[in-house]
Amino acid sequence: MSLTNGSPEAAATAAKTASFTLASLPASARNEALEAIHAALTASKDEILAANARDLELARKAAADGQLSQALVSRLDLGKKGKWEDMLQGILDVRDLEDPVGKVQLRTKLDDGLILERVSCPIGVLLIIFEARPEVIANIASLAIKSGNAAILKDNLLIYHLATGGKESTESFIAISQVISSALSTTQVPNSAIQLVTTRDVILQLLSQDRSIDLVIPRGSNDLVRYIKENTKIPVLGHADGLCSIYLTATADKEKSAIAIVDSKTSYPAACNSLETLLVQDKALDTIWPDVAFALALKGVTLRLDEPSKAALSSTTLPDGTVLDATPEDYDTEHLNLTLAVKTVSTVEEAIAHINTHGSHHTDSIFTSNEAEAEHFMNQVDSAGVYWNASTRLADGMRYGFGTEVGISTNKIHSRGPVGLDGLTIYKYKIRGDYQPTTGYGEGEGKRPWKHEKLSF
Amino acid sequence: MSLTNGSPEAAATAAKTASFTLASLPASARNEALEAIHAALTASKDEILAANARDLELARKAAADGQLSQALVSRLDLGKKGKWEDMLQGILDVRDLEDPVGKVQLRTKLDDGLILERVSCPIGVLLIIFEARPEVIANIASLAIKSGNAAILKDNLLIYHLATGGKESTESFIAISQVISSALSTTQVPNSAIQLVTTRDVILQLLSQDRSIDLVIPRGSNDLVRYIKENTKIPVLGHADGLCSIYLTATADKEKSAIAIVDSKTSYPAACNSLETLLVQDKALDTIWPDVAFALALKGVTLRLDEPSKAALSSTTLPDGTVLDATPEDYDTEHLNLTLAVKTVSTVEEAIAHINTHGSHHTDSIFTSNEAEAEHFMNQVDSAGVYWNASTRLADGMRYGFGTEVGISTNKIHSRGPVGLDGLTIYKYKIRGDYQPTTGYGEGEGKRPWKHEKLSF
Repeated sequence: MSLTNGSPEAAATAAKTASFTLASLPASARNEALEAIHAALTASKDEILAANARDLELARKAAADGQLSQALVSRLDLGKKGKWEDMLQGILDVRDLEDPVGKVQLRTKLDDGLILERVSCPIGVLLIIFEARPEVIANIASLAIKSGNAAILKDNLLIYHLATGGKESTESFIAISQVISSALSTTQVPNSAIQLVTTRDVILQLLSQDRSIDLVIPRGSNDLVRYIKENTKIPVLGHADGLCSIYLTATADKEKSAIAIVDSKTSYPAACNSLETLLVQDKALDTIWPDVAFALALKGVTLRLDEPSKAALSSTTLPDGTVLDATPEDYDTEHLNLTLAVKTVSTVEEAIAHINTHGSHHTDSIFTSNEAEAEHFMNQVDSAGVYWNASTRLADGMRYGFGTEVGISTNKIHSRGPVGLDGLTIYKYKIRGDYQPTTGYGEGEGKRPWKHEKLSF
Repeated sequence: MSLTNGSPEAAATAAKTASFTLASLPASARNEALEAIHAALTASKDEILAANARDLELARKAAADGQLSQALVSRLDLGKKGKWEDMLQGILDVRDLEDPVGKVQLRTKLDDGLILERVSCPIGVLLIIFEARPEVIANIASLAIKSGNAAILKDNLLIYHLATGGKESTESFIAISQVISSALSTTQVPNSAIQLVTTRDVILQLLSQDRSIDLVIPRGSNDLVRYIKENTKIPVLGHADGLCSIYLTATADKEKSAIAIVDSKTSYPAACNSLETLLVQDKALDTIWPDVAFALALKGVTLRLDEPSKAALSSTTLPDGTVLDATPEDYDTEHLNLTLAVKTVSTVEEAIAHINTHGSHHTDSIFTSNEAEAEHFMNQVDSAGVYWNASTRLADGMRYGFGTEVGISTNKIHSRGPVGLDGLTIYKYKIRGDYQPTTGYGEGEGKRPWKHEKLSF
């Protein structure tokens, strides 16, 4: 790994060249590199936490002056209980995942001695741009190496450089990067395969390297993702928004619905898979909705209601300030806090139309005891996750059993929903033959038909 | 299907809405739509060929004036032997393919009564832009309907409107479109699911509808593909160039190599999978190369040679004009005719580096009897197809046994190489649950562990 302050183009070209070597390393060599990183970080704990403490001091000062948000300061803090240990364990967890590279996905006998294979392989060069969380460096470097991809890492703590008088990279980033860099130099991973760019103001230049960089993975706020998507031709894996909805029908189980809706909304309100809009069937307004509203209010949720859903609560006693009138914008807003927009609809068709128009194609759920209605909802809603009687908070790579999560994608091609290591691979077709000319094959006289026999793998 | 001359935005929005309905139609309804198209085209043969004849008359006049190429005129001609019949048979062939929609790809028990499924589904809305070949309309409409995708079709016969005083769409396009449109109106496929845009000068506006259009598929010249890739944020499935190479080593079989190289170069020189650059190992210059050069020359191939490969032919008698000096540009040029660039290299590493730098990541082959060398080449060359002792002309969906081909992709994500119907699908995650709150799961006291049990499907 190299820590570069050179040109973005040179970094991208060097990463591309290194990616070919990295792609050919056996799993054992890639796993050894992860172990080397783990050992080096373990040995350098004090020095990294000291660098992090210097970042925190600057950040706290900037926060006190109102230049930086408290949330950003908190995310910068590597010293928080369990964070360091989790970061180190994460590297070993990635090492222990099944190798995603070299999997045969298809094998066909085109003819005797002419065998077609489809084999998974790394994508090539990843550009990862992230904010504030220093532990992501180790995580993403591990994922890239495990999947055989070269990676260019750039931290872009928006406004941090303003708050700190010109610094763009945090000291934490530089310290962790240097440790990883020297650890990798003892391994078979080529030096340029993982590059950490500390140069200022090069994001746009990096985003224009579409000849060398194959995929951009932003790890940060919606604003960062949106900015990146607007400014590159390279495919971006991720989602800008997580505007998830639940459609609560009159046939849903009342008590269980209240629990699952509270879970979807309150278990981690800032997460992208949290509930933002509750669609209530008109027939459920007097039967289920008041209990659900009460349960939400008890958890401190503010309800932004349309007229029918507000009227239905007239005889329910709720804490002051719980009920507000919804504005049209509420149904297009990812609040990321304990605010919930509520809208009354009559039919599943209306719910589907609302979600496909106002949602962000992330994760949406229907609560109903009618199976046909649930299946219709799941088929028609155009989202990465479509659930029946399940909390939207299930949308997560760990919960899906993928072992790790590269991110959650709302793209319509390649990877959708929680993306595991497989999302960092593509495939190539290999043919092993005996110099057969193609002109001899086909239909008709004197032609040899293709065998197209599926072989086991 | 509707034939629209309305706004591109309205067309895209209508197609998106229709796509949700189309995505839910059972395979039988989609297949019936294909049969309706087939029957309607069969019944309207005379009228369509008459429209095509009017196009051809205009086009021939424009070609005589030098405004249109002879090749374009030839591609416009629907009356050519077998073309009409092939077009009709193609619709039935697509109907008979396995349904790519609704395939379960993964099923996991997250917990009792909490089942995760990954199911294939259509991508959504395709934008297909094509040139000159009227038969592509029926083909691509079939592929879209079969895979459950809405599609917007636009013909863009570059310069045709100049040559014809303002017409952008051909009469063939309009005639075929009208027939397909009225055929579909008798089926369950919604009216807006397939739209044919005849409005002039709207390509750029269509390419900017990234909120509604999910994938662009260009069917035409390299220039068209390159123009589209430069002008949209929507993912483009395809390849601009097909610069394929063969590395001929000293251990290759001489006679078979000559046959396979002739096949790769001459069996269809204008195809994207044809050979453009031959890399000859220096040790093969005096042993294999002269015979290969002789075989190529017999087929009319012009050789653009570097110094060593030219010197090696000093005692080989070749037809006049066969041998020219290569310029550096020759190794970056897709000639698409009987011109072959030849370069001498010493090692497989040198061959790999040349291909990864100068090739187009389409299809490349090594001719050798050394298995380890072949595997190294196939692992390191960053192309959709990497072959050992096989003709580059094998890179084709029909030859791979996919039944049909949407196109050949050199993208590094989603689909790579020849793309079958599967390339027009993505997947969604479905969860069927019992309102379980997620906060109850995890590790530690009082928490319920995830089961993550793989279920059969």
